Amino acid sequence: MAAYTARAHTNIALLKYWGKADAQLILPTTTSISLTLNEFYTETTVEFDEQLPHDQIILNGRVLKAHERQKIERFLDLVRQLAGIKTYARMVSINHVPTAAGLASSASAFAALAGAASAAAHMSLDPSDLSRLARQGSGSASRSIFGGFVQWDRGTDSNNSVAHSLKDPVDWPIQLITVIVSDQPKAVDSRSGMQNAFSNSPYYQAWVQHTNNSVPAMQAAIANYDLDTLGRLAEQNALEMHAQNMVANPPFNYLTDTSWGLIKMVQTLREQGLSVYATMDAGPNVKIISRPQDTEAIMTQLQQTYPDLKTQIATPGPGIQIWEEV
Amino acid sequence: MAAYTARAHTNIALLKYWGKADAQLILPTTTSISLTLNEFYTETTVEFDEQLPHDQIILNGRVLKAHERQKIERFLDLVRQLAGIKTYARMVSINHVPTAAGLASSASAFAALAGAASAAAHMSLDPSDLSRLARQGSGSASRSIFGGFVQWDRGTDSNNSVAHSLKDPVDWPIQLITVIVSDQPKAVDSRSGMQNAFSNSPYYQAWVQHTNNSVPAMQAAIANYDLDTLGRLAEQNALEMHAQNMVANPPFNYLTDTSWGLIKMVQTLREQGLSVYATMDAGPNVKIISRPQDTEAIMTQLQQTYPDLKTQIATPGPGIQIWEEV
Repeated sequence: MAAYTARAHTNIALLKYWGKADAQLILPTTTSISLTLNEFYTETTVEFDEQLPHDQIILNGRVLKAHERQKIERFLDLVRQLAGIKTYARMVSINHVPTAAGLASSASAFAALAGAASAAAHMSLDPSDLSRLARQGSGSASRSIFGGFVQWDRGTDSNNSVAHSLKDPVDWPIQLITVIVSDQPKAVDSRSGMQNAFSNSPYYQAWVQHTNNSVPAMQAAIANYDLDTLGRLAEQNALEMHAQNMVANPPFNYLTDTSWGLIKMVQTLREQGLSVYATMDAGPNVKIISRPQDTEAIMTQLQQTYPDLKTQIATPGPGIQIWEEV
Repeated sequence: MAAYTARAHTNIALLKYWGKADAQLILPTTTSISLTLNEFYTETTVEFDEQLPHDQIILNGRVLKAHERQKIERFLDLVRQLAGIKTYARMVSINHVPTAAGLASSASAFAALAGAASAAAHMSLDPSDLSRLARQGSGSASRSIFGGFVQWDRGTDSNNSVAHSLKDPVDWPIQLITVIVSDQPKAVDSRSGMQNAFSNSPYYQAWVQHTNNSVPAMQAAIANYDLDTLGRLAEQNALEMHAQNMVANPPFNYLTDTSWGLIKMVQTLREQGLSVYATMDAGPNVKIISRPQDTEAIMTQLQQTYPDLKTQIATPGPGIQIWEEV
């Protein structure tokens, strides 16, 4: 069977996914809205090969051992089940999402895997079906099938919990400056963090309600080219997500003193008239939502406040691309 | 008129006061429960003197200037109004609450002032009346009139928003180890912090509800000598208070990386079988609720984790004492 390659880009959530209403199917508690990013992506090639005694997975040039393959094997099992085949696969994947970028790579990784594996299994999935499939590898991967602004409807079953495009390509100037506070693996991984919040945080239900209630306003902000409303909603959503982690059991906290210093720096820049807003995922890095024309002013302030911190700039990116290797 | 001196001790809230339902009368949104502390107190002498052209305030040996006296003058005006006198007062106050202890001194300060000023004005106030009066200087001062475990009922008017004793003296072993993370003045003072939370935090109402709902369980824990329930409720209440500050407008945060390190150290000690719990007020210092018999184990762990941090140990203390100077 032929080898297929897929390239999928990572995304940053403006309204977050943080908790599963159904952990088996990965149905989220919130409808989330994200921006797919051009600069960071995963490229994955899959070929089903009758000769293989088991799945062979090569990640960033390294052959994974049996115990490291389990999550990907389970996902390939799902593809085989849908395609009605039993053949093992060779998967070669390269992550162009540097760890230091502070951006999750599982979104682009499982989106690319869904695209390459389904094509290699001769399934002809449309983007919605690809999104449903990718979701079952990693929730946020459902959004990385699409480019630009994307909404993942939380849904009530595996069919209607699916992402769709809100605006692609993005026809207005928006960028994300990630300030790297730490490139170390986080102490609490997303999966167990969101599970703890879901089960134990007394503020969790309020966060879910606020997130879902913010969806229409976020959609309108995107439709109206309104960076200030978009940024304000995103910053508020991120802070509420982090705040409720602090009261889970045990409590946990991704934001460090430097994260807070950056959040305050963003506030100060805003008081000076710039349209800049902060968002933070499951880690200490602060992502500054801003306009490209304000990059220099932001960088100057950052250089004064935190001269040692590295940054990465990302702009809106495209949806998944899939091709046959020849 | 004769000079009277009052000594009032500071207190630590186990269920917090953080926000005013009525800012004029200082009626709180929550019923709070505290422990009065033996080691930290304010001693204040007040004498009304016909010869004085204005109130004369000497705080820790320093004569306050006109603009520094305003809050105390307003409180003395309240006492004069209640007593039906117009005479100015000489007030000499010494705070035995070192700044570095990380404990608020306004509770003991306004409790002692209420006691000394009302006695000097020949008002014979019972503890409940003193509590109502002290409340109007600083909310938490209402609790410092009483010793041991104290409850301040939030109430609905100036009469029923008053503290009362839950248990005094405290007949079981409980102590508070304050770990001094910073002895600098806080960036956001309590008054404006709680006002911001009250007005702007989307989690504020949940915090108020959880606090008020925790009152019966905290009362039972105190009555039943149940340090673990008391500590668990106190730690949860403090974390929820801090979490909702993070989503006020603007967001603010008193807890630093070191505060979180100490919270985790307390968790670790608990996993090792010790009954230790953390609480934090409007600042980064962490107060460890514990048993005196566990002091050495806690100090050993602290010495290993944060060898440079200073500590202060406090035990249950008495209610206000008032005497005539002769």
